Amino acid sequence: MASSHSISLHNTIKTSINLSYAKSNSSLPSKLRPNLSHSMQLRRLTLSVVAQNQRYWHAIESEIDSFLDKSIPIRQPEAVFEPMRHLTFAAPRTAASALCVAACELVGGDRSHAMAAAAAVHLMHAAAYAHEHLPLTDRAGSGPRPEVEHKYGPNIELLTGDGIVPFGFELLARSVGPARPERVLRVMIEISRAGGSEGIMDGLYKEGEIVDENSRFEFIEYVCKKKYGEIHACAAASGAILGGGSDGEIQKLRNFGLYAGTVRGLMERKSSVEIENIVRKLRDLALKELEGFHGKRNVELLTSLVAEPSLCSA
Amino acid sequence: MASSHSISLHNTIKTSINLSYAKSNSSLPSKLRPNLSHSMQLRRLTLSVVAQNQRYWHAIESEIDSFLDKSIPIRQPEAVFEPMRHLTFAAPRTAASALCVAACELVGGDRSHAMAAAAAVHLMHAAAYAHEHLPLTDRAGSGPRPEVEHKYGPNIELLTGDGIVPFGFELLARSVGPARPERVLRVMIEISRAGGSEGIMDGLYKEGEIVDENSRFEFIEYVCKKKYGEIHACAAASGAILGGGSDGEIQKLRNFGLYAGTVRGLMERKSSVEIENIVRKLRDLALKELEGFHGKRNVELLTSLVAEPSLCSA
Repeated sequence: MASSHSISLHNTIKTSINLSYAKSNSSLPSKLRPNLSHSMQLRRLTLSVVAQNQRYWHAIESEIDSFLDKSIPIRQPEAVFEPMRHLTFAAPRTAASALCVAACELVGGDRSHAMAAAAAVHLMHAAAYAHEHLPLTDRAGSGPRPEVEHKYGPNIELLTGDGIVPFGFELLARSVGPARPERVLRVMIEISRAGGSEGIMDGLYKEGEIVDENSRFEFIEYVCKKKYGEIHACAAASGAILGGGSDGEIQKLRNFGLYAGTVRGLMERKSSVEIENIVRKLRDLALKELEGFHGKRNVELLTSLVAEPSLCSA
Repeated sequence: MASSHSISLHNTIKTSINLSYAKSNSSLPSKLRPNLSHSMQLRRLTLSVVAQNQRYWHAIESEIDSFLDKSIPIRQPEAVFEPMRHLTFAAPRTAASALCVAACELVGGDRSHAMAAAAAVHLMHAAAYAHEHLPLTDRAGSGPRPEVEHKYGPNIELLTGDGIVPFGFELLARSVGPARPERVLRVMIEISRAGGSEGIMDGLYKEGEIVDENSRFEFIEYVCKKKYGEIHACAAASGAILGGGSDGEIQKLRNFGLYAGTVRGLMERKSSVEIENIVRKLRDLALKELEGFHGKRNVELLTSLVAEPSLCSA
């Protein structure tokens, strides 16, 4: 069942990539195509590198899917684990989990050390996604909330989200062996913050608030930073921690993740000149953080995260 | 602000204890007073021991409150941390957190080693309690759900619960220092399971289900085991792990917690002959688990958990 979910996710991603490349050398939607004078490094992304990135990215995502697939078998009580499995795979994929694995390899670590953290990052997102779409009495007027298909009733979807979060921490705690205990504990703090009140939850809180026209774009940037940026920052930092990166490397990758995740969140919004300007600023900042890593394995893959928003959805 | 919450919690507990002792030597409601021939050990609980237990128990609870109070200061973003603090202290106290500390001391550990775990246990409960009382469209007909005062709207209460759970894991991860990393990781697995799909969430799932008359009491026992038993079992086992208990001690305390927590959950229900019989059976099983600990510090305190349901609410 999970494998069919994974296949369908990959198909979606592949299709969107192919479509965008059929139209242009850049996968960015034309309305958001960067001003190349601002981002000279993007020119380096030739089609062959992009194809290589794409294969590599899919390989990481398949591994994370397999890991989740094995970690959440359908078992007793089925009424609990079947929805848990469904909501885990139903949430649209973010780039954060794969970024966690890529960051681990970038600093010279073994992929297997970051697998549980990558899965936990996806689980935090999947739980937040399920709760974001719950029908609550005070949500009707809080702005557009995309309609999603609900396989279960709200009570089950609420409780399943509540079960998914601690399960993410359990996976992490059980990953000691390939990963070192002190590193796993550090990653737990990262994931707690980004998946909780200092990250996704803060973004979701703020999202429904009304702001005046003057501060509207700062506000949108803030919400995207909290909803998407922090979890990508945490994922990149966690991968670097588990891969044995230096404090400097961890910080650079955390910053990169924050900018890249925020960019990917902003790309989901209705575009405007102001949003384009913010995206351009953040993309430049993101690429700057990667300067010290040039020549290392995967660095183009990370670069492509801010260059190619259609590689996988934010 | 937290201190006023703590004081009011303690006052409530104290009052209920005083009232029950004014009426009887036993704090058990008369309808559930045990058949002493089944529980000879209860006779040992003289009034002076009970008063001592009460002081000791309050001291533990005060320390857990202070720990939580310091751990969740009101800070930016206030819109996030104010509700988090409110819902943490608004949830009615269970015996589980104090049991965690008492179990740690029972096996010879230092109280400070179990403090973060005790706080995390309360946070899991507080988040579940907030979510249990959310108004959802499919909850209207799912049996009696006690009315609680809602200081915030459903959206804030949902998201705050979502923020509280990872924060509990963060507290635990940060507790390495007084506690050893491998013990903390073991406790995380315990808390993930009991606070998630194998404990509280399973109980909440099942609670609304309709059962036939023949299996009604087995079903009530199952729900109480999942909603209350597992978190008390986890708390006792976690305290024993952090206190350096042997595998045998950890298992006995886990079993004790499971029985004691289930008893405390059952005591909250409308009584009947069948419920009284289950309570009596579980109380005897609970006391049996403590046999190996006689003469050790705190053992009477643990015994009082199944003898004195008014000491603090289940």
